[in-house]
Amino acid sequence: MTPRLQDLFTFLRFPSISTQSDHAGDMVSCADWLVAKLRECGLQASVEPTGGHPLVMGWTPHNPALRTVLIYGHYDVQPPDPLDEWTRPPFEPTLLEGRVYARGATDNKGQILAHVFGVADLLAAGEPPVNIVFLIEGEEEIGSPHLESFLIRHRERLACDVIVISDTGMVADGYPTLTYSLRGIAAMEVRITGPSHDLHSGVFGGAVCNPATAVARLVGSLHDENGHVRIEGFYDDVRPIFDWEREAVAKLPLNDDAIRQLAGVPGLFGEPGYSAVERIGARPTAEVNGIGGGYQGEGTKTVIPREAFAKLTFRLVPHQKPKEILSLARAHLEKHLPPGVALHIEEGHSGEPYYVDPNSPYAEAAKKALQGVFGCPPALLREGGSIPILTVFQRTLSADALLLALASPDCRAHSPNENFPVANWESGIRLGRKVLEEIAQARR
Amino acid sequence: MTPRLQDLFTFLRFPSISTQSDHAGDMVSCADWLVAKLRECGLQASVEPTGGHPLVMGWTPHNPALRTVLIYGHYDVQPPDPLDEWTRPPFEPTLLEGRVYARGATDNKGQILAHVFGVADLLAAGEPPVNIVFLIEGEEEIGSPHLESFLIRHRERLACDVIVISDTGMVADGYPTLTYSLRGIAAMEVRITGPSHDLHSGVFGGAVCNPATAVARLVGSLHDENGHVRIEGFYDDVRPIFDWEREAVAKLPLNDDAIRQLAGVPGLFGEPGYSAVERIGARPTAEVNGIGGGYQGEGTKTVIPREAFAKLTFRLVPHQKPKEILSLARAHLEKHLPPGVALHIEEGHSGEPYYVDPNSPYAEAAKKALQGVFGCPPALLREGGSIPILTVFQRTLSADALLLALASPDCRAHSPNENFPVANWESGIRLGRKVLEEIAQARR
Repeated sequence: MTPRLQDLFTFLRFPSISTQSDHAGDMVSCADWLVAKLRECGLQASVEPTGGHPLVMGWTPHNPALRTVLIYGHYDVQPPDPLDEWTRPPFEPTLLEGRVYARGATDNKGQILAHVFGVADLLAAGEPPVNIVFLIEGEEEIGSPHLESFLIRHRERLACDVIVISDTGMVADGYPTLTYSLRGIAAMEVRITGPSHDLHSGVFGGAVCNPATAVARLVGSLHDENGHVRIEGFYDDVRPIFDWEREAVAKLPLNDDAIRQLAGVPGLFGEPGYSAVERIGARPTAEVNGIGGGYQGEGTKTVIPREAFAKLTFRLVPHQKPKEILSLARAHLEKHLPPGVALHIEEGHSGEPYYVDPNSPYAEAAKKALQGVFGCPPALLREGGSIPILTVFQRTLSADALLLALASPDCRAHSPNENFPVANWESGIRLGRKVLEEIAQARR
Repeated sequence: MTPRLQDLFTFLRFPSISTQSDHAGDMVSCADWLVAKLRECGLQASVEPTGGHPLVMGWTPHNPALRTVLIYGHYDVQPPDPLDEWTRPPFEPTLLEGRVYARGATDNKGQILAHVFGVADLLAAGEPPVNIVFLIEGEEEIGSPHLESFLIRHRERLACDVIVISDTGMVADGYPTLTYSLRGIAAMEVRITGPSHDLHSGVFGGAVCNPATAVARLVGSLHDENGHVRIEGFYDDVRPIFDWEREAVAKLPLNDDAIRQLAGVPGLFGEPGYSAVERIGARPTAEVNGIGGGYQGEGTKTVIPREAFAKLTFRLVPHQKPKEILSLARAHLEKHLPPGVALHIEEGHSGEPYYVDPNSPYAEAAKKALQGVFGCPPALLREGGSIPILTVFQRTLSADALLLALASPDCRAHSPNENFPVANWESGIRLGRKVLEEIAQARR
């Protein structure tokens, strides 16, 4: 194993789970380690306090004659559960058949650390052709609640011409991919309360509204039988798919059957008239990420539960607005609420959908770098995931982001057995250097 | 505290939770204690092995000139969760404002032990006027899976003229109540599987069917917006309510508002055209006792879960048949299943609905005993709960059961803070003796 791969393993051993407050100490240790690593690579670096988990910055001395590139990533990870579905412990990385298995291997520790080493190589070769700023936060997986205020506070230190991010997926293993659009997100937790205590379902059943039934009816009311969202006004601001986009989709080395296999589903399902890639990249969704209520244990318990919940997220496409979608969803739920129970809604994090012109000068530089490293022209993709802070970057720093995919299609980000191919790790280090060289030479 | 109340406390301290296999040892300890107590009261007694948790028997020497009364109860209890809603630990009984608080206080330890002490008083007064057999099982809360084979094997030891059971509820605190009908039950666990692993809801959302959404749609499809069950054929065998039953309901000291308060709901809900008492006693239901899938923890986790479940029970009225209802439900679920996911159904325990003529000679004896102890004629009630073994008794022993309520309407059976009024405990002991004396004198 190379010393750099050993460094990745060390990085992956920190259980830096931002959503679970008992891991706050692990977040700090992980940030400290990262600062030391940036310094070792020839950058200046610091841990930056925020109102939540700290953020890590690294930078080269500023040369006003050069363009400045901001490289963004995150060191926090999703919770690893369900734990019993991991074949190896999530925070003890394992190298197996050319892949590194661990929570965060792809999302995002493997990808951001590849960029760090790419910059190290660039610095080792002499004076860099661009100014470099690393911004590596610890709250991406919980919606970056403190990033915007940090960007505003440190706008001058962070001033840049373009942003580079590797937090997206390749269309096929080893196939270079430039993502030019991402979905936005809006989260909402729905809680239904009814009886003051769990009731005997024989003694009261038939005369009271069951909160678990009510939450099921509400969730069931969100879609028609084809998966089209039934919330009134939901699609009003959705921009139709352009013809050139449909043509780009048709050229992708990725078809419905490949997506079916990656998902491991018996069959695909979704809105008629769209391919799976279009449903994922260019159409909005309403998903229930968690539902619960009543007895969860072994056997039977004949109760009418006092409450039930559903955790919902909406994935949004240009030009839907998160706040507006949450209002429409709230109105829909209130309208469909059965009598005899109460509805409680807590709005969660949100982020706007993102779009950047794939034919701009910096995007051309990115395409050249990708072709240089991978040997063929990159696919142009609209991705289904969300990086809500992209619109925050546009707003506060007036800079677009180049989304250079290093994630394998079966990387299992957010799932058990997350992994990162060593090949992508190595290409990532080369790309990390190459994209900076291409940006330095991009046409004005 | 009286020594008898201290005995009840000891009985309640056993965490005899039949559905949780790690409590098997507690079941045996509890059965042993009960046998010792029956012997102390002047009965012969034994622990009887079954294929599951043991059963306890107690009996007086058989006199062929006398009628035989079988007294049935159970020493197992429901799980206590949600634990954090108990104001006192569920297996550390507390006496507060005239009520004993503990899991099992009412259902069924308090009620069956009152009968034991009633018999003790009868035996202390001389030769009993009837033969007495106690049958106290340890699997009532899990559907009595081994009772029927036990009854068949021990048919001669258990031969009886009538059965006495206190496992039902009074219509109002201290108001004598004879239950002449109970609902049956049929249980089913529904599991929906989709992706082979939890998926990132951004990366795949829109192109696959979400199992949590699917389970919600299935549960939501079970009722119309008024709570009427939509399963085809579900009501075909439901016998309409007789006029005299509606008149008996009108006389009950129990109205819709009282039920609303007992349930602690903001408003009642259910089939139009029926009072709450009728909805509970004389109409069938489809309830979800537990629903779950996806992320259950703090915060957000943006996944499409690989599976989701719902635990369903149907409460049945004469002349619905459990097996038939489960088939109809299965057909309904299969018909409404969205594409892209698989449906797995596990049928659970079941029991037929029960009905006994409230004007038979033994029922008249029960009414006299109730009037004697409580001072007014008893209410005649159809109850919503289920005692599935009543039809097993009818089938194997050819004997009807007299259901003499000792449970208070706010006893919170199956719920946190279950309790039993000391007044009911004391009336129960007197009733336990009196009903045997009245049965001895019942007309032929």
